[in-house]
Amino acid sequence: MLEKISSPEDLKALDPGKYQELAAEIRQFLLEKVSEHGGHLASNLGVVELTMALLLALDLPEDKIVWDVGHQAYTHKLLTGRRDGFDSLREYGGLSGFPKRKESEYDCFDTGHSSTSISAGLGLVEARDRLGGSYTVVSVIGDGALSGGMAYEALNNASRLTSNFIIVLNDNNMSISESTGGFSRYLSGIRLGSGYNNLKRDVRRGLSKVPGVGESLVENISQAKMALKQMVMVPGMLFENLDITYVGPIDGYNIPQMVRILEEAKKIDRPVLIHVKTKKGKGYEPAERYPARYHGVTPFDIETGKSLAGGGSPSYTEAFSRTVCRLAGKDERIVAVTAAMTEGTGLKRFASLYPERFYDVGIAEEHAVTFAAGMAAGGLKPVVAVYSTFLQRAYDQILHDVCLQKLPVVFALDRAGLVGSDGETHHGMFDLSYLGSIPGMTVFAPKNRYELRDGLTFGLGLGAPFAIRYPRGAAWAGLREYKAPIELGKSEVIFRGEKIALLAVGSMVETALAVRDGLLKAGIEATLVNVRFVKPMDTALFGELLRDHGMFVTMEENVVTGGFGERFSGWLEERRTRARVVKAAIPDTFVEQGGTEALKKKLGLSAEGILERVLRAWEENGPGETADGEG
Amino acid sequence: MLEKISSPEDLKALDPGKYQELAAEIRQFLLEKVSEHGGHLASNLGVVELTMALLLALDLPEDKIVWDVGHQAYTHKLLTGRRDGFDSLREYGGLSGFPKRKESEYDCFDTGHSSTSISAGLGLVEARDRLGGSYTVVSVIGDGALSGGMAYEALNNASRLTSNFIIVLNDNNMSISESTGGFSRYLSGIRLGSGYNNLKRDVRRGLSKVPGVGESLVENISQAKMALKQMVMVPGMLFENLDITYVGPIDGYNIPQMVRILEEAKKIDRPVLIHVKTKKGKGYEPAERYPARYHGVTPFDIETGKSLAGGGSPSYTEAFSRTVCRLAGKDERIVAVTAAMTEGTGLKRFASLYPERFYDVGIAEEHAVTFAAGMAAGGLKPVVAVYSTFLQRAYDQILHDVCLQKLPVVFALDRAGLVGSDGETHHGMFDLSYLGSIPGMTVFAPKNRYELRDGLTFGLGLGAPFAIRYPRGAAWAGLREYKAPIELGKSEVIFRGEKIALLAVGSMVETALAVRDGLLKAGIEATLVNVRFVKPMDTALFGELLRDHGMFVTMEENVVTGGFGERFSGWLEERRTRARVVKAAIPDTFVEQGGTEALKKKLGLSAEGILERVLRAWEENGPGETADGEG
Repeated sequence: MLEKISSPEDLKALDPGKYQELAAEIRQFLLEKVSEHGGHLASNLGVVELTMALLLALDLPEDKIVWDVGHQAYTHKLLTGRRDGFDSLREYGGLSGFPKRKESEYDCFDTGHSSTSISAGLGLVEARDRLGGSYTVVSVIGDGALSGGMAYEALNNASRLTSNFIIVLNDNNMSISESTGGFSRYLSGIRLGSGYNNLKRDVRRGLSKVPGVGESLVENISQAKMALKQMVMVPGMLFENLDITYVGPIDGYNIPQMVRILEEAKKIDRPVLIHVKTKKGKGYEPAERYPARYHGVTPFDIETGKSLAGGGSPSYTEAFSRTVCRLAGKDERIVAVTAAMTEGTGLKRFASLYPERFYDVGIAEEHAVTFAAGMAAGGLKPVVAVYSTFLQRAYDQILHDVCLQKLPVVFALDRAGLVGSDGETHHGMFDLSYLGSIPGMTVFAPKNRYELRDGLTFGLGLGAPFAIRYPRGAAWAGLREYKAPIELGKSEVIFRGEKIALLAVGSMVETALAVRDGLLKAGIEATLVNVRFVKPMDTALFGELLRDHGMFVTMEENVVTGGFGERFSGWLEERRTRARVVKAAIPDTFVEQGGTEALKKKLGLSAEGILERVLRAWEENGPGETADGEG
Repeated sequence: MLEKISSPEDLKALDPGKYQELAAEIRQFLLEKVSEHGGHLASNLGVVELTMALLLALDLPEDKIVWDVGHQAYTHKLLTGRRDGFDSLREYGGLSGFPKRKESEYDCFDTGHSSTSISAGLGLVEARDRLGGSYTVVSVIGDGALSGGMAYEALNNASRLTSNFIIVLNDNNMSISESTGGFSRYLSGIRLGSGYNNLKRDVRRGLSKVPGVGESLVENISQAKMALKQMVMVPGMLFENLDITYVGPIDGYNIPQMVRILEEAKKIDRPVLIHVKTKKGKGYEPAERYPARYHGVTPFDIETGKSLAGGGSPSYTEAFSRTVCRLAGKDERIVAVTAAMTEGTGLKRFASLYPERFYDVGIAEEHAVTFAAGMAAGGLKPVVAVYSTFLQRAYDQILHDVCLQKLPVVFALDRAGLVGSDGETHHGMFDLSYLGSIPGMTVFAPKNRYELRDGLTFGLGLGAPFAIRYPRGAAWAGLREYKAPIELGKSEVIFRGEKIALLAVGSMVETALAVRDGLLKAGIEATLVNVRFVKPMDTALFGELLRDHGMFVTMEENVVTGGFGERFSGWLEERRTRARVVKAAIPDTFVEQGGTEALKKKLGLSAEGILERVLRAWEENGPGETADGEG
């Protein structure tokens, strides 16, 4: 049946008696595609029926759905004409795993990070009202995303609305890990209670605003409401206290009921929150049982649920996990903070070994950072483990609450550099820029898994703000024998050659080895420096290298603007030198999804690409000039 | 009496019958000092008694008070041994207007931006509990600051606590402008209702956790509580829903009652929120009547309340205000967004002219940006008016929600560059770095008030993300006759000379004029470029200048790391040139408070300082080498 559904119109033409069957087909389709390509599974399986209900009750693309985070929009994509795209799901040039305005007119707002949908939806509502539109705007947000502060900022602002805005709370009682905090417990309380539907009352309130029906009626009802709220057991009081009309909780697998309630909700001239109960992983037993494990997956066997990826070498995440646990075993002041990423950041083991020193604050990076700063001010040694891309949320907090006060907070930035198939919104390609601009911050990038261990150990002993950034995936184990003791601001010289110096940051040391081999073949024995400290830079070493090097090649998995290469150039420009710089970095552009090797090649960050640029510059410019005046 | 109070101990030794008299003396002292030096007035007048109560009930510095935002901590400073400091309040080298750990052991956490105190306090509580301390931690937060999402993130996390943590909600029904949103209305509802003190019940609950008192009692009470909550009119239900014990509202001018309640609250083994009603400007009639006007003030006459500052020339803020109103008059799609800074950003006139197109979202920069992105996606042309330093809060939202989607949001960044006496936390010295690192962002800096007008007009017509940054204070009116039409990415050549090119960003064009005069006296006729576009850079012009210029002087009021100078160096380093660069920028360090002229001098950003550096470089290096090989 699924192959006949290419648009919401096709869905609407379907006999409602067939909905369950279609939902089953969609689940099977998603399972097959995600098990083949990898992707987000549990969240998508949970919202098949909810998505169908939304597409039935709304008129897309005229009406708008903003999917918070966006990785749960697979059914939405499938039913809006993108079925064939799933054959290239999350591949280079293929279908994105997130809503993309440029991909389809059915996607009205790009998402990728959490807790933005109510703000964006509210913006669309205001635009509609200002420009005389009459479409319906629905923001779909998970209970986990509601732990992010900006969702609350948006709810607080939604209350001023006097026109329709529908917020669907997709409550699966999970963020990625289990949801935490008072708000989550509050929702659980509602889930367990009996549903209460105050929709009719609010429809009446909405109607009373039609011209001709007097204000006084509204006021009377309003006063009655105040009393009512306090006198009877009303779930959703928290939302009602914020002047958001609450409806629910309702069953996220009863399509006709959801459609009916959505139809009613569209008539209300104010913000309405519909609380829908869903289950992550719905319909696929392994995912229902282990929703966190099936949140984002690599290709796997549907029968057994087992990953098809080979064992592979240990990841940087695992190296971090082992090290932080070992260090915590020796120092009780070490505590760990995560923002809803216990598994992804490798803190699961820490959480089970040291539960009293482990803090999952929910999707709340701003709080995570300032909370850690407070702990550091109180004498603890906090490690904030977070993906590079998500720490963008806390730039100001790092600046003020950590670095301005010189507090010893360690940031463990996982997924730094290109991350692959999650694409534009998830590459960790800005951290060297945004952390680098902050006075007093130390930024360290290890060349291999051993150096991650040593760097983290160093950072926890530093007594000052410290960030260690490392990439997604298997940890390189090369150059193990190079293990110069770590000193603040000192780079490590791997090979001392002449004329050309390769200055490689973190993951690029492996690439630089290959570039150096290529240069050897061209008769040049280049110097290879493992930069280690992007901030502060080892200007003493660089100054020394100026004596017999006329060309410097900076290499980093970071955007060029504000990155290591520009900082190096800025330093070099004021020296009395005529050395040249070749900067290998991500250009000043957003980077699409795709395999990291393919992306590196495209961006000029592959060993071959860099070698070619260096050789060309060498031919064009000569070796540059050293401070000694030698060519 | 005040001169005898140099520590909290002195205060505790005072006869309670003297409290009112002391409070009056403190008010008079604050009025005198602030009217002389400028500073934050209304908020400080509001919390004199609250501060006294806190110092009476707590044992500082062992116990900790985290003041949210921090500009209301004057009485705290006064009563903790810093009376004499007020003679140099907010001056260079003098007493800070904000809590500073380095200033006093009585200040436990630095603040400056809003909504951080609960996160920091919670961190201190965890540190206390982990390290076996027994001190009390109090976070004092205003109702305005509670509109910031991270305060909610912190409340959500506080609920897990099983030890004492006191949050004092300083509710004056204002942020800087009037508080907005559903939460504010909710608090107003409580303020108007009759107070209800559930403290005794919670003390009982706290006691029931003492070993020997069974769990069952706690459970029984807990169940009873659920019923009770729903059955009677309980204020603070919203907090109770988040598992925060609520007490209040109580009178913020009744010292003995506040002390009693604080003493009781210290006994509870869980988070307690004490809702205190205060009034901004209390005791000084002009400030009570116009609290926003007396929020932050320049020196004024106490009798009349009138500012002592001369009329002065119009500020950049005023130029922005006039222009945005004029443009909005011609295009109904233009809307304006502020985060609780209606007056400061100059949007007051817009708000009264176009109330239906004006949005004060409260202290909620993250929401402000994504909300604007949503409006832009819906066809509007939003202008987000915000201080440079506060936009740091929304780095990720600018990146994802605006620039990744290429949405036409205009950011009007006021207070860019050095701001003076607010100091470290408020200088707008990072925006060129953090905005510059974002692909697709356009960053414009006008040289004078006329160019602000033209630049804003250009930005609103661009149809893509656009930021215009301008400084605090009087708008320069010089070089009025230079008004080359604004073209994307094109700089403006003011004077075409040779050998040395001064590349000046925004406010530094005025400085560059003086530097150029100095160079003329030394026989060098330098080129002066008004950079205008920091991003994208005018590399065509710069490439052309390379032909007959051997030295470039970049000038910007931004930190050097990631700023214009480094970006220029990074571009230049890859050219075939031997030109030299002198970068005039703020060094990679936080900058203290002080007059902006004095600070510029100290940082090497004064015309004299730059001229000296340029002449020295000229002497040392010669003029550098041009692409034509001429010296």
